[in-house]
Amino acid sequence: MEKKISSAVIRRMPRYYRHLDELRLEGVERISSEVLAGKMGLTASQVRQDFNCFGGFGQQGYGYNVKTLLKSIAGILHIDKGHTAVLVGVGNLGRALLRNFHFDVCGFTVVGAFDPSPEQIGRTIGNTVVRPLAELEGFVRGSRPDIAILTLPGPAARETAAQLVEWGVRGIWNFTNIDLHLELSQIPVENVHFSESLMVLSYRL
Amino acid sequence: MEKKISSAVIRRMPRYYRHLDELRLEGVERISSEVLAGKMGLTASQVRQDFNCFGGFGQQGYGYNVKTLLKSIAGILHIDKGHTAVLVGVGNLGRALLRNFHFDVCGFTVVGAFDPSPEQIGRTIGNTVVRPLAELEGFVRGSRPDIAILTLPGPAARETAAQLVEWGVRGIWNFTNIDLHLELSQIPVENVHFSESLMVLSYRL
Repeated sequence: MEKKISSAVIRRMPRYYRHLDELRLEGVERISSEVLAGKMGLTASQVRQDFNCFGGFGQQGYGYNVKTLLKSIAGILHIDKGHTAVLVGVGNLGRALLRNFHFDVCGFTVVGAFDPSPEQIGRTIGNTVVRPLAELEGFVRGSRPDIAILTLPGPAARETAAQLVEWGVRGIWNFTNIDLHLELSQIPVENVHFSESLMVLSYRL
Repeated sequence: MEKKISSAVIRRMPRYYRHLDELRLEGVERISSEVLAGKMGLTASQVRQDFNCFGGFGQQGYGYNVKTLLKSIAGILHIDKGHTAVLVGVGNLGRALLRNFHFDVCGFTVVGAFDPSPEQIGRTIGNTVVRPLAELEGFVRGSRPDIAILTLPGPAARETAAQLVEWGVRGIWNFTNIDLHLELSQIPVENVHFSESLMVLSYRL
């Protein structure tokens, strides 16, 4: 069933999750599609349509139970699977993610961070000790992390990504400016392209 | 005319731009909708439909001239307007952007960076000197940057954003985990939510 759902609907699910989690923290127990839609800048019918893709989640006229809805969306997005990640490239961006990003909210644990630079190796950033890049292969083959986070400079990204897949990684979160979609058609890649977002802002100015 | 174009089409424009710029660097002069579509994982008819929203860009059967197309898309996205930006919050993420992000590719120049921390103030990062946060108001009122880049911790983001708008900023590129859409309905905000992208990857694993 999940196969038929459009990627636009899937991409809205994390937004629902984030807004609903805020509501939960504010102590809200039930919410109507109208109120949820208003909070997110959508229409109520859009919200109902999106949720209908997954069989509904609620009874018409009664609104949604916030906690139940969160749990359902977590299930859809596999946030409840306890995924693991290695981070490759501990520059400013890698450090920013290790220190400040709430991996746990997305259901991920960072199990290793790797960098070639002697100045970074051995440092503890967030809760993660930086290891030498030379140990990456042994670590990935041994610990089988679900995904790799690529925060290394662009030119090295393509080769590293191919190796990571060969060593057993099942997905890539790509922060480099290299598009990896086509080379890695066998596993999912999510590219984070800052420039696309800035160009859209530029359009809207 | 631009008003009628769907945000999905607009969001694809930066991707076209990026791929076409790669083609230009490889020396490619003309490209068919089929080849461009194949490179981007779209269909040729999708590409033609997208370009038709802006009046076409090419003659059926002849392919597109890469440089002309780049120029047209740059015009649509206002990349050619010489926009300016101030960056607020020089933590790891702010430093990563100042050092490594190619603002010029998006048509932006960073004209100032601001942070409250004495350790950051006075440092030169990328080409930008970090100034005290206390000087932000005077700078924005005087220099009238087009946008502000928010890379400061979440709790301070909402108030800072409201002040920036009052002082004359026309758009916000928001890297905090606070959604600013609703408060700032008078100006465009582009939120960069890393967690949404990671959750989509989680779904696709």
